[in-house]
Amino acid sequence: MAPFLSKRDLQFQLYEVLDTEALTSRPRFADHSREVYDDVLALAYNVADKYFANHTREADLNEPHVVDGKVKLVPGVQAAMNAFRDAGFFSAHHDEELGGLQLPWVVMQAVQAHFQAANMGSSGYPFLTIGNANLQREFGTPEQQRKYMLPLLEGRWFGTMALSEPQAGSGLADITTSATPKDDGTYSISGTKMWISGGEHELSENIVHLVLARIKGAPAGVKGISLFIVPRYRVNDDGSVGESNNVVLAGLNHKMGYRGTTNTLLNFGEGGETVGELIGEAGKGLSAMFHMMNEARIGVGMGAVMLGYAGYMASLEYARERRQGRPASAKDPNGPMVSIIEHADVKRLLLRQKSFVEGGLALGLYASSLVDDLSTGPEEGRADTALLLDLLTPIVKSWPSRYSQEALSDAIQVLGGAGYTRDYPIEMYYRDNRLNPIHEGTEGIQGNDLLGRKVTQAGGRGLQVLVERMTADLQASEGLDGVAEIRAALQTAISQSGAAFTAILGRAAELGPDLYLANANSALEMLGHTVVGWMWLRQAAVAARALPEAKGDDASFYQGKLQAARFFAVYELPRVRAHADLLASADRTTFDMHGDWF
Amino acid sequence: MAPFLSKRDLQFQLYEVLDTEALTSRPRFADHSREVYDDVLALAYNVADKYFANHTREADLNEPHVVDGKVKLVPGVQAAMNAFRDAGFFSAHHDEELGGLQLPWVVMQAVQAHFQAANMGSSGYPFLTIGNANLQREFGTPEQQRKYMLPLLEGRWFGTMALSEPQAGSGLADITTSATPKDDGTYSISGTKMWISGGEHELSENIVHLVLARIKGAPAGVKGISLFIVPRYRVNDDGSVGESNNVVLAGLNHKMGYRGTTNTLLNFGEGGETVGELIGEAGKGLSAMFHMMNEARIGVGMGAVMLGYAGYMASLEYARERRQGRPASAKDPNGPMVSIIEHADVKRLLLRQKSFVEGGLALGLYASSLVDDLSTGPEEGRADTALLLDLLTPIVKSWPSRYSQEALSDAIQVLGGAGYTRDYPIEMYYRDNRLNPIHEGTEGIQGNDLLGRKVTQAGGRGLQVLVERMTADLQASEGLDGVAEIRAALQTAISQSGAAFTAILGRAAELGPDLYLANANSALEMLGHTVVGWMWLRQAAVAARALPEAKGDDASFYQGKLQAARFFAVYELPRVRAHADLLASADRTTFDMHGDWF
Repeated sequence: MAPFLSKRDLQFQLYEVLDTEALTSRPRFADHSREVYDDVLALAYNVADKYFANHTREADLNEPHVVDGKVKLVPGVQAAMNAFRDAGFFSAHHDEELGGLQLPWVVMQAVQAHFQAANMGSSGYPFLTIGNANLQREFGTPEQQRKYMLPLLEGRWFGTMALSEPQAGSGLADITTSATPKDDGTYSISGTKMWISGGEHELSENIVHLVLARIKGAPAGVKGISLFIVPRYRVNDDGSVGESNNVVLAGLNHKMGYRGTTNTLLNFGEGGETVGELIGEAGKGLSAMFHMMNEARIGVGMGAVMLGYAGYMASLEYARERRQGRPASAKDPNGPMVSIIEHADVKRLLLRQKSFVEGGLALGLYASSLVDDLSTGPEEGRADTALLLDLLTPIVKSWPSRYSQEALSDAIQVLGGAGYTRDYPIEMYYRDNRLNPIHEGTEGIQGNDLLGRKVTQAGGRGLQVLVERMTADLQASEGLDGVAEIRAALQTAISQSGAAFTAILGRAAELGPDLYLANANSALEMLGHTVVGWMWLRQAAVAARALPEAKGDDASFYQGKLQAARFFAVYELPRVRAHADLLASADRTTFDMHGDWF
Repeated sequence: MAPFLSKRDLQFQLYEVLDTEALTSRPRFADHSREVYDDVLALAYNVADKYFANHTREADLNEPHVVDGKVKLVPGVQAAMNAFRDAGFFSAHHDEELGGLQLPWVVMQAVQAHFQAANMGSSGYPFLTIGNANLQREFGTPEQQRKYMLPLLEGRWFGTMALSEPQAGSGLADITTSATPKDDGTYSISGTKMWISGGEHELSENIVHLVLARIKGAPAGVKGISLFIVPRYRVNDDGSVGESNNVVLAGLNHKMGYRGTTNTLLNFGEGGETVGELIGEAGKGLSAMFHMMNEARIGVGMGAVMLGYAGYMASLEYARERRQGRPASAKDPNGPMVSIIEHADVKRLLLRQKSFVEGGLALGLYASSLVDDLSTGPEEGRADTALLLDLLTPIVKSWPSRYSQEALSDAIQVLGGAGYTRDYPIEMYYRDNRLNPIHEGTEGIQGNDLLGRKVTQAGGRGLQVLVERMTADLQASEGLDGVAEIRAALQTAISQSGAAFTAILGRAAELGPDLYLANANSALEMLGHTVVGWMWLRQAAVAARALPEAKGDDASFYQGKLQAARFFAVYELPRVRAHADLLASADRTTFDMHGDWF
């Protein structure tokens, strides 16, 4: 089977495009070195390869089901969880005093990428657990952290996030799960939560749900929402697991893909009381939840990248091995068939994948490096970094979700009929990834977030920071061999996007919020392609500088980077214009459509 | 459950956009009337609804498998086949003397559309059978027709097409199945065929395979390929079914979707002799096969349209019923939630679907009407009609295959998480339709067919006919209310496409065949969107003319057509430019890429 990612590319992204090694000059990472990071990544590859990749298809074919009241998973999942825990990955980015390695977030994200590529379904459990613990680290009291977070860092308990309800999916303002204060300061939780990944299983001693609910008497809308820690089993004062907390599995969802991750409907307070603890301030549950959600959005984007990446690797291997047909110029029907990688249209399908998944990987790791800068970078730049990360988050989440699906479709196409069968993993990745444009905020929500919030935040400073950084990379790459096309195309895309934002922002008051947002999807598409174009310029510039000295495989690698950048410039960036024109025109076509005209 | 197609739209397409009723003035259809056609369509709806739609999901969940050496299907399939047969649809377009109704092909295609929308998997069996019979009608001897075709028309036997082999999928020139002449004029067939839909089942008394093979001593390449009738069971002189013909099922393919249609690996001549009869001329097998193949390509396109259509209908129903969120302008969090169809981004997702599936339906039926014109239209126009149909065939096949997948992705997105589950049929349609860009000629093959063959055929006359017809519709719609945007956008797309074709054709000799074809995919995209833009102008013009007098639902219907046309003009047609620029520039990016740079 093909490898699930390219180690060479990951090294390139971390050490040549990003200067991850330079992080070791920051106090928090002073004990680290490139060797430390490389060892961690090698461990991640080995654990992912040995314990995760081994049951990806098996879990797909045997989705979670209930036997004797318990959720049954394929056996490989438990072994994978144990291996992940034994490798120390649950706490690897946490303080040493908490048992962690203080890994930078960008390295942690690169670690996670291995598991996402090897087995998206099984990686869901630890990643939700890590996100849950991160939220507790930020908002939990020391007592809550001791009681509910430490077992997560040890990988003994797992975590979830419980936001949606059957009547409130994208519209969280309308959740109705209630929290009734009890005399001891805890709350009695009652309600139904939908789409809860990892909501029930027997993989861990306990499950810690983070649950959005309304304290009795709280106002309607988002201001009335608070966040609660709700364990599956109540926790005794000594930290041991006690009796059931009456969180009842009401059903499993049967999905097209992503089948390795149990997805549940949960009833809280059924057949007995469900007790929860408020975490963070009352009425500020949604903003606390967004701490986890923003991290989850980057995680979704990275997951999408890695599914696309695994598909790319599989289709590349096939294209090299499969012989079929001859060039159009070949006259002799008896001549040898060529590897299909020799056909221009197959090269197009592979280059398109490469440009999407390596561009997406660059973007996901760049965003992760901003997370590091926020916590350990120079103080004076942090406000700008925060705005840039906020601006990029909807793109980091949605762009790979959408374009990895395109990449995976291309991967299927490379294989032809074989790609449509279960003999190869690509059809599974294609089914898996189709979830990514939906969960943790649909594309519609990401578009509204970008155009309705992030672009105008702090007087538009986020967009300004982005343009400054892109401009700096454009200037730094001037005159480099082989990057002229990507530079020119990026410059054009930046101008077009900038003009479109200026146009629509200038008419925001006149248009009113509904019409202003009517083409938010085009803003997402336009800025997404522009930003990924920038990621390709950054990669191309590194390759152009390295190529003159490079030999053998290294030279081929850099040539490939330059060619993929050129592909993105010539085949993809020209798409920006149509989206920019549409956004700038404040087109009313969708807005004016009546429901009864359909 | 939502209806699987819109009867109103089908009436609109057949009688308002196309003048199907006017066919009754042609001698072959003189006994017909609109009532006859309407009765046939109503029968098709009822049979599809009652006998096909009832087991679509069941067949998806229980894919064909082998029990005691026989292929087992869900029981509904046999009942569906019987109902289809009892309704007379196997022969409905054939001569009355053969038991047919002499239905025009466009009506026959509209009949088939019902079954494709209701149950793509089960409709595969009769449609392959119909295509097989049509080929025999064209190329079979009277004796062959009596022996092998009549039982197909009666629906007693079923048919297949057997082209691909394990080592030769898209590259048919390399097939190796052999045909050794026998003394009695028949042939002994030996070899392995791959991806044979309907290749084995117990639904019919016999299966008639049309098999490409090489007569011993034939030259290499396509000129050595002949076509053979190879029955599963040998046929006695009295037409009765005899002993096994040693066509052995070697395996079933396990597909992502399209699971209702058995897909097989077949060994010919295993464990005994397989006898076949040559049909058509020796060495001209591929061109005979293309009679069926061209029909199958339109059928694939129509199938893609109808899967997209069924998904559109399902998501539309959901969007009307599901309440969630409020307009961005709503200030009161206690205010009522709105139907999600009120949100602009959901309207975008629905309008995009509508523009793709109704545009695709118009295209498929238009192409089918050309098939009628070829056989029953005025003699003097037939040469042009043939060239136009040839030119459009790769687009009719590939455009809906690609854009119905986009539509189905949008349909999933309308439902959000629910769309990703098996509680709704859309995820199944999405899996089903992903086959359509692959089978009966991949996208790569369609692109090469369009740019390498169809555009230059007869000195480019096909393209000229297309432009003449588009121009005529542009002129006829001048000044109509509400069609200005679609007219302008179409005119631009025609200019851009025309200029791109001129540019690339002018450099064909200089570029050589490989580089000339390197961006054939862009030719397909560019001309596909342009042609569908034309289909939307035709629909918009009818709607604009009808609207002033229309009332109630009819007025809404025409408004919807105009709005969807506007959507296609504003959101989709601007995509033509980037493809046209790329094609015109003869960009070398994919051509220059080396296999070892990936």
